[in-house]
Amino acid sequence: MARLTEIGWEEFERLPLEAKKPYLANGDIPDTPFHTLFAQQFDRALLERLARLANRIRFMAKSKEGAMYLKSLLCHKRAMLYFSQPSSRTFLSHLAACQILGLTTGSVRDTAISSEFKGESKEDSIRTFSSYFDLIIMRTPEKGLAEKMAWELSNSSRPVPILNAGSGKDQHPTQALLDIYTLLRSFESKGGLKNRTVTFCGDLMRGRTVRSLSYLLTNFENIRQVFVAPPQLQVPDDVTAILAEKGVEFTKSDNLREAVTLSDAVYMTRIQDEWDESKGESARIDTSRFKFGAEELKLLPADGIIMHPLPRRDEIATCCDHDPRAMYWRQMRNGMWIRSALIAMTFGFERQIMCFGA
Amino acid sequence: MARLTEIGWEEFERLPLEAKKPYLANGDIPDTPFHTLFAQQFDRALLERLARLANRIRFMAKSKEGAMYLKSLLCHKRAMLYFSQPSSRTFLSHLAACQILGLTTGSVRDTAISSEFKGESKEDSIRTFSSYFDLIIMRTPEKGLAEKMAWELSNSSRPVPILNAGSGKDQHPTQALLDIYTLLRSFESKGGLKNRTVTFCGDLMRGRTVRSLSYLLTNFENIRQVFVAPPQLQVPDDVTAILAEKGVEFTKSDNLREAVTLSDAVYMTRIQDEWDESKGESARIDTSRFKFGAEELKLLPADGIIMHPLPRRDEIATCCDHDPRAMYWRQMRNGMWIRSALIAMTFGFERQIMCFGA
Amino acid sequence: MARLTEIGWEEFERLPLEAKKPYLANGDIPDTPFHTLFAQQFDRALLERLARLANRIRFMAKSKEGAMYLKSLLCHKRAMLYFSQPSSRTFLSHLAACQILGLTTGSVRDTAISSEFKGESKEDSIRTFSSYFDLIIMRTPEKGLAEKMAWELSNSSRPVPILNAGSGKDQHPTQALLDIYTLLRSFESKGGLKNRTVTFCGDLMRGRTVRSLSYLLTNFENIRQVFVAPPQLQVPDDVTAILAEKGVEFTKSDNLREAVTLSDAVYMTRIQDEWDESKGESARIDTSRFKFGAEELKLLPADGIIMHPLPRRDEIATCCDHDPRAMYWRQMRNGMWIRSALIAMTFGFERQIMCFGA
Repeated sequence: MARLTEIGWEEFERLPLEAKKPYLANGDIPDTPFHTLFAQQFDRALLERLARLANRIRFMAKSKEGAMYLKSLLCHKRAMLYFSQPSSRTFLSHLAACQILGLTTGSVRDTAISSEFKGESKEDSIRTFSSYFDLIIMRTPEKGLAEKMAWELSNSSRPVPILNAGSGKDQHPTQALLDIYTLLRSFESKGGLKNRTVTFCGDLMRGRTVRSLSYLLTNFENIRQVFVAPPQLQVPDDVTAILAEKGVEFTKSDNLREAVTLSDAVYMTRIQDEWDESKGESARIDTSRFKFGAEELKLLPADGIIMHPLPRRDEIATCCDHDPRAMYWRQMRNGMWIRSALIAMTFGFERQIMCFGA
Repeated sequence: MARLTEIGWEEFERLPLEAKKPYLANGDIPDTPFHTLFAQQFDRALLERLARLANRIRFMAKSKEGAMYLKSLLCHKRAMLYFSQPSSRTFLSHLAACQILGLTTGSVRDTAISSEFKGESKEDSIRTFSSYFDLIIMRTPEKGLAEKMAWELSNSSRPVPILNAGSGKDQHPTQALLDIYTLLRSFESKGGLKNRTVTFCGDLMRGRTVRSLSYLLTNFENIRQVFVAPPQLQVPDDVTAILAEKGVEFTKSDNLREAVTLSDAVYMTRIQDEWDESKGESARIDTSRFKFGAEELKLLPADGIIMHPLPRRDEIATCCDHDPRAMYWRQMRNGMWIRSALIAMTFGFERQIMCFGA
Repeated sequence: MARLTEIGWEEFERLPLEAKKPYLANGDIPDTPFHTLFAQQFDRALLERLARLANRIRFMAKSKEGAMYLKSLLCHKRAMLYFSQPSSRTFLSHLAACQILGLTTGSVRDTAISSEFKGESKEDSIRTFSSYFDLIIMRTPEKGLAEKMAWELSNSSRPVPILNAGSGKDQHPTQALLDIYTLLRSFESKGGLKNRTVTFCGDLMRGRTVRSLSYLLTNFENIRQVFVAPPQLQVPDDVTAILAEKGVEFTKSDNLREAVTLSDAVYMTRIQDEWDESKGESARIDTSRFKFGAEELKLLPADGIIMHPLPRRDEIATCCDHDPRAMYWRQMRNGMWIRSALIAMTFGFERQIMCFGA
């Protein structure tokens, strides 16, 4: 097995994602990640195992007995949430996932009040903080910092798993996991996640969510992907190149209504104007036809679902919120369950949870 | 029974407080609030039940056995403290109340680091955060937001109780509860909270505390109210109109010393100059005769008590702090107990606590 | 026994440190501090008891059974971390120490969001916050505030212990405790902490760490102290005066390499330019010969250790990090263990921990 202790940082950094994957595995627990850094670490078998584990945790948490059992599992562990890039929802979702499993937590949310101002390197800061904790959940604007820390900690005398909760424009693996889990749950009793059409709509050029989910969907059988966006915000070629390579059927379109009528899932996204290069370029794009409202709701098949990574602006009208096909609030909550599942698995508690009450 | 799911938001919003009350009740537990939004939800029977429950919790918490029992009650629940208006003391008091009952907590204290900047509505933010939690404790500068969220969440697929920890100039119901609890405790062994004179002194025009407490006191038998303030800061007419309507005896005065000699409780308040319309108008008011010091202490009856919602400036001289009649520090701690009682009651644990050890 | 209730604040404040010590003791538990305010409260017997207790906690925490036992000890208590001077590492270390023992915690980290802006005194703020908690861990820029609060709370109806986590340039007692613990651990199996040479290097003029550790080392037998610094940053005379008075051998030097070859422990420190009186004076000092790198590593005896209170800049080259003699990461983690030991001792759980499994 590949180990991070057997490879230098520069060499590891240069590897393609596929080649990095084995280095991030848990040496003691087969087919399980130790560090979770990117969505591409997850193949179909692992995604389905995680979904089963999340389902199980979700059901157990409904009873006080089950909830207390879950809380007993990791009550001897402590997690640090290092969020140098603010995000209340991602923070709270990970926090709740920790609390479900009994982990106590500490957090660094504002790096202005960390010691970094005294000239300390980020690597030193995080390593210091890690000396008090058993799991590091980190969200940073710097691409690659989570990877660097994973390498550093694995090469220290006290390896601690890193869970990447968003690294710049780069990766946000647990967002992709919760999207897949939402799809798996939604189609569970309807034949499963295969032979489906998933439509992505909105700013497909700049959202890492779309990129990761599109990739993970290639793990499932016969999932057609439709990309609906204004031409300036269409999905990048490297995303569709992967689909082409894997023989996945896909279409680009600028007609949301037409796509909706043929979709099993419509994944709406926000215009990410915070990434505008010259401030305001997004504002000049006509996005009026890329919004989901009462009309689109009528066109959506009875079995279809609407997803959104949230926060939303006006991409989905609030009049859709009470429709049973609106899945975005449940999608949020799924994030908490899938993160619980991932953390439980990382610490080797998958079997103990799956066997509860058996 | 009235239900929030059976009334539209606009219609509900327009109802007078009295008419809103039944909509906030817990459908499953008789005579118990689900959402706690305003002081007027509490009648005498409920106030006395809460006080008994708070007493019980306070005594149980003295022993490790009792404290551990309390912590076991809600250890399967999570509370979110959404404090977009900062207040360390109200925050910590609610936090401690949660911890006493075993709830784990998450918090949003600085909305600048929430996702709202991406154009999300407050309703969406709070609903998202609520998807990870079982109780929302919220403090906001916006009048009515707690009510709106209560309606929204009750109409969602996952109703979660809202506890209003202060909404603008409007309402701060648990402050009123802790004031009543302090009065009930203080007179418990002295014949109870009836046939008393309660004197309010300071800025009676702008403090929501005075407004709520004055109202709640009308639930109790023969409580005279004395309002001592400079003319510019006297109690507003709508407050005394309620007293007149309910046949409660009250007086306005500008002579604190005279009032003190006849008082069972003196409730001092701070000049709330943060509400000044033209900056500095409060500074031009002579407030020198509206302060409680060594002289007033001498005049206060032996059985009387001094209260203050804190923080104080110089309304009460620190030389009073060690007098056994100074109740303001205990009043703070009472806030923690009454909030524990309210949360325990909201989740249906009143009976289980009252029967402990029986 | 001396008691803080029997002495006025002004009189107490004026006492020399040695004379203050008995006032800070726990009235109920012999030879144990109630408030921990300064390093000079700890004599050799107490330091060694704390180190034994920290060792024990460290070993217990390795097993889930032991960890759960530790968490049960103080699960009925709540600690407040009042950090008006930011420090993520000190905050997280104390937080983890509380979590190990089962204390739940609340924190005030930004006094801008506390009520102080409304004209409240710091004493009132802290006393208010303390009404919800059983232990106050405080870090403030104001010299003497921890002492004042200890006196105030001991003279209130609800005494709560104060743990000083850093008060200005003044005192940071638990930093000194973790340094001593690191030395005791490092030499435990090598004949103990006696007949050793400890070299301090860097900014010895302005670091309170050096000052406290130098003092505590005088408790141990035959510890020579070497102070290596540029002349402008040499150790102050009052520190060496104490050594002279106690008959401790010491040297001043500007030659790190020479000192290293003869050292059992090298304690590196950062140039504390945040204390520069005229901005930038430190930058004009040549500190190039006061850094520990590959060359110094070669000169260090095989049994020697390298310490640093962290954060570091470039005083220690990162190439030293993987050397087994580099003790600074472990030193961080020792801070967590020794703080756990101190808190457990403060609450009277020393014996219960030492007897676990016996």
